[in-house]
Amino acid sequence: MAKKKTKKSDKKSDKQLKKSGDLAAEITEKLCVAPGFELSSLDASSTPGYKGDKAEAEELLAASAAELGELQERLYANGRDGDGTSVLLVIQGMDTSGKGGIMRHVVGSVDPQGVSLTSFKAPNAEERKHPFLWRIRKALPKPGMIGVFDRSHYEDVLIARVRNLVPATTWQRRYSQINTFEKSVTDNGTRIIKVMLHIDADEQKARLMERLDRRDKWWKFNPGDIDERELWDAYQEAYQAALDKTSTDSAAWYVVPANRKWYARLAVQQILLQHLRELDQPWPDADFDVEEQKARLEAS
Amino acid sequence: MAKKKTKKSDKKSDKQLKKSGDLAAEITEKLCVAPGFELSSLDASSTPGYKGDKAEAEELLAASAAELGELQERLYANGRDGDGTSVLLVIQGMDTSGKGGIMRHVVGSVDPQGVSLTSFKAPNAEERKHPFLWRIRKALPKPGMIGVFDRSHYEDVLIARVRNLVPATTWQRRYSQINTFEKSVTDNGTRIIKVMLHIDADEQKARLMERLDRRDKWWKFNPGDIDERELWDAYQEAYQAALDKTSTDSAAWYVVPANRKWYARLAVQQILLQHLRELDQPWPDADFDVEEQKARLEAS
Repeated sequence: MAKKKTKKSDKKSDKQLKKSGDLAAEITEKLCVAPGFELSSLDASSTPGYKGDKAEAEELLAASAAELGELQERLYANGRDGDGTSVLLVIQGMDTSGKGGIMRHVVGSVDPQGVSLTSFKAPNAEERKHPFLWRIRKALPKPGMIGVFDRSHYEDVLIARVRNLVPATTWQRRYSQINTFEKSVTDNGTRIIKVMLHIDADEQKARLMERLDRRDKWWKFNPGDIDERELWDAYQEAYQAALDKTSTDSAAWYVVPANRKWYARLAVQQILLQHLRELDQPWPDADFDVEEQKARLEAS
Repeated sequence: MAKKKTKKSDKKSDKQLKKSGDLAAEITEKLCVAPGFELSSLDASSTPGYKGDKAEAEELLAASAAELGELQERLYANGRDGDGTSVLLVIQGMDTSGKGGIMRHVVGSVDPQGVSLTSFKAPNAEERKHPFLWRIRKALPKPGMIGVFDRSHYEDVLIARVRNLVPATTWQRRYSQINTFEKSVTDNGTRIIKVMLHIDADEQKARLMERLDRRDKWWKFNPGDIDERELWDAYQEAYQAALDKTSTDSAAWYVVPANRKWYARLAVQQILLQHLRELDQPWPDADFDVEEQKARLEAS
């Protein structure tokens, strides 16, 4: 009755996956923020841990989707009884850094049933009445799910700091509040992966100009984007402070050079893949007698 | 500055898309439930409106993704100011009818930022305290979004009817409550597309057996699935009644023969595509002076 004993993709891409296996570990290690990391020293056009070109990167991205899919399905299968592990992927970056492309090309390659994606905009009236982590807690992934945050509580130490949206004493306190919060989240079984997409100011200018040049991109442009751009250095400082203060053992930051979109997408995929491999969720055992159910089904 | 004036896929698949264009209109028309429709007369292995084979269907599915993606992006772009049109795709079907495959292969091909997917399970304690449409209203898509329901309020006239979960007078009243509700939803700018995936009992048996045969599928199996299967005829009757009573001008039902997964996926994609074409959302105009912003950007 079994129509196919193994998935089509299991065999044919073994070689590619093995290759991409080493790649995942290497990229994950190289991009992980270590003490003393300096954002200003990282070339946004570099491709740490990867020596290939764009075409090969796109092939690797496609070739890794099957393994990512199986690992995601195992995670999901283990979460079905309402307990078990989950993953939270936090994506931060300046305007035009490619967050949307990560959503489309990396997150979008995963079964949507196993993903809960939340885009955090400026807090609304109700959210502003609550502590800054209130809306974040509500969006945490359930067991078995991969939660993805497009922007996050880090905006509360980025734009809130740069724009003086709250008193300095308030945002200063938030770093340790975030660490305590994230510790409690990981203690409850959620693997947190934090990614900053790092572009440089020239690249941003080119990308904003493209939005102005193309009629089908106008809707993505907001004159306020240029106001934000004028605070570039203050934002870089705020990012550096966040990386310094909130890179912890339980919730590491990865800074991904993102001038080359194809590298950034491959890198984020490989980091996610590496964490899912480490979680190594097995297929759950049957909580019924398989032969007995086969006999029941046969008779039905 | 514009790196690419047109999308890679714009040109090369014109011919395929044109072909798939006629296909979308034809499949949509053929599968739409008309007065007098009889579920029991529809061959679940048939492929209405499509004469090709599996390989060609998979090619068409892939080739239509670019057009679907652009139409979805236009919809999304128009919803950004918090008003405008949205789409709601409701997927119903017996266990193993392929709802998950539609989520992975059709919904999964759309940018996850533009999709809100809700899987409705048996109502929890809080949901049971409210009228049956309460949890449905909460999950309706925001402007610009494609909402997808994996099961829906139709369970309240399917399992609720077959299993006598509520008195007969209660579920009998629900058909007109659903019609009133859906009318108000469409009046508020949401295009509703309702799909029933139609398999036959033999196909279900084979698919359940596959879940029992494969260790990596055990987690999807529940002994209760066989109990439900034993009520097959009652479910078919309940589906027929729902189709009879809730196929309206504002919210049509499509019954998709689903013994062949590749046909069902192509058909659901083409129906969604056809509706997005009919909505025909333009790229929004700029609400700023493009040349002025270019000058500001250049100077920044």
